[in-house]
Amino acid sequence: MTAPNWLYENFEPAGSSIGYRITRKLDEVQSPFQKIEVYESTDWGNLMLIDGAMMLTTRDNFLYHEMMSHPALFTHADPKQVVIIGGGDCGTLREVLKHPGVQKAVQCDIDEQVTRMAEKYFPELCESNGDPRAELLFDDGIAYMKNAAPGSLDIVIVDSTDPVGPAEGLFNKAFYEFCFRALKDDGILVQQSESPLVLLDLIKEMRGEMGKAGFKTFKTLPFPQPCYPTGWWSCTLARKSGGFDFRENDAAAKTFDTKYYSADIHRGAAVAPPFVAAALGE
Amino acid sequence: MTAPNWLYENFEPAGSSIGYRITRKLDEVQSPFQKIEVYESTDWGNLMLIDGAMMLTTRDNFLYHEMMSHPALFTHADPKQVVIIGGGDCGTLREVLKHPGVQKAVQCDIDEQVTRMAEKYFPELCESNGDPRAELLFDDGIAYMKNAAPGSLDIVIVDSTDPVGPAEGLFNKAFYEFCFRALKDDGILVQQSESPLVLLDLIKEMRGEMGKAGFKTFKTLPFPQPCYPTGWWSCTLARKSGGFDFRENDAAAKTFDTKYYSADIHRGAAVAPPFVAAALGE
Repeated sequence: MTAPNWLYENFEPAGSSIGYRITRKLDEVQSPFQKIEVYESTDWGNLMLIDGAMMLTTRDNFLYHEMMSHPALFTHADPKQVVIIGGGDCGTLREVLKHPGVQKAVQCDIDEQVTRMAEKYFPELCESNGDPRAELLFDDGIAYMKNAAPGSLDIVIVDSTDPVGPAEGLFNKAFYEFCFRALKDDGILVQQSESPLVLLDLIKEMRGEMGKAGFKTFKTLPFPQPCYPTGWWSCTLARKSGGFDFRENDAAAKTFDTKYYSADIHRGAAVAPPFVAAALGE
Repeated sequence: MTAPNWLYENFEPAGSSIGYRITRKLDEVQSPFQKIEVYESTDWGNLMLIDGAMMLTTRDNFLYHEMMSHPALFTHADPKQVVIIGGGDCGTLREVLKHPGVQKAVQCDIDEQVTRMAEKYFPELCESNGDPRAELLFDDGIAYMKNAAPGSLDIVIVDSTDPVGPAEGLFNKAFYEFCFRALKDDGILVQQSESPLVLLDLIKEMRGEMGKAGFKTFKTLPFPQPCYPTGWWSCTLARKSGGFDFRENDAAAKTFDTKYYSADIHRGAAVAPPFVAAALGE
């Protein structure tokens, strides 16, 4: 490859593409589950791709990691027990552990190689891995949730790749039933839910499966994420009952720094644009 | 070109790229000012490119056009006289004319070919061109603002291409001074202000130039825009004095449809994420 060059991810389901100007490939490993590549870019720091799909860049991952964690943790009254399914780059774990009330955060990613690559090429995301409240498991997330003690968890964050390949089983009723059982009555399930512009059908389907598993209320929060298709992404929160009012005062007075998340951003993201509200029947 | 194929815009200043899967080129014209191309895509309707830069797609242009118009018009107490500099695709004009209080909306784009292409390939954006309140001029926007009667306008919307090429003169103190003079004391200047993630320096510079021209208060509103670099874009509002509280009740009770804009979205966009607020000194 001659440098600099352009590396594209053509996202076939939406007919759109995201690309970056890269200077060189830093690493590549074929794990038992997927191909992981890391590139150095001219403007975005390092990029990680899994099976050809952009997973994160040094420059913009804060958007996703902050929005996958803080809205749920500030919606729950007092989150202590958190499980992250997937999330092998450890960025979501780092955000979760910023909450002083969290007593334990388990990260269960099936692919240890993702974490090894993150330690090497995104060390800032792994800076909380040594926190005594953190537990890193490399195992099947579906089995982990199946075996979790009923009513033991406050928050489950499904920080996975797209619903194809290894992550496919994380988007259906069977898996959501395990989550439902493992969560306490006031618990919250969070899942990355793709682009609200082009994948609204997927969000509807996901909510439908969550509903079949027993979840009663849902909230989809959009946020910018340049390295994902369309540059506009979302997470979806689900509860057994109750709404999504959040601890606004606590969020406004939080004792840790964030770059994107704030009480105001949370409030703004919680109101769907008209076309999204119409599609989701909100 | 074999179909389907991928068409990319490599955005050199940020080292990122946006692309679409296209089926064929529908048209191409070299105007005296720029090269305009229109492609048909598999998932995004038609695409218009100017000098190789994505300008709009059928599918996602509503985001930009709604956010370039409604926040300013609902911030002004009673906007009657509106001028759009650029905006040749007529999408912003259509949104402006949705406000029943607007008495006149002048669109002044230097390149008539942009409007001709829009009429042909984006007819839905041109559906208000025959409104008796609309006036379409094909002339130099800088000269138009220079010659505008002092204190005659409520809103000036600068809906231009990037600050290179024909639009370069729309991003400096000299042009902003014309806008300042033409606006009434409670008038509002709106300008598309690029990506808040990668082009914060440009937003700061633009605000600086606006300030040198006399504008005193500023508000940058981010919004998703998949066809522009990083998929996250912004507009910046400037006033001679006063703040950016908006007519929330009127916006909530508006008599026309929008797909993205709402009073809630406006309120949410008006609060900068922490990293943007820090960079802009808000």
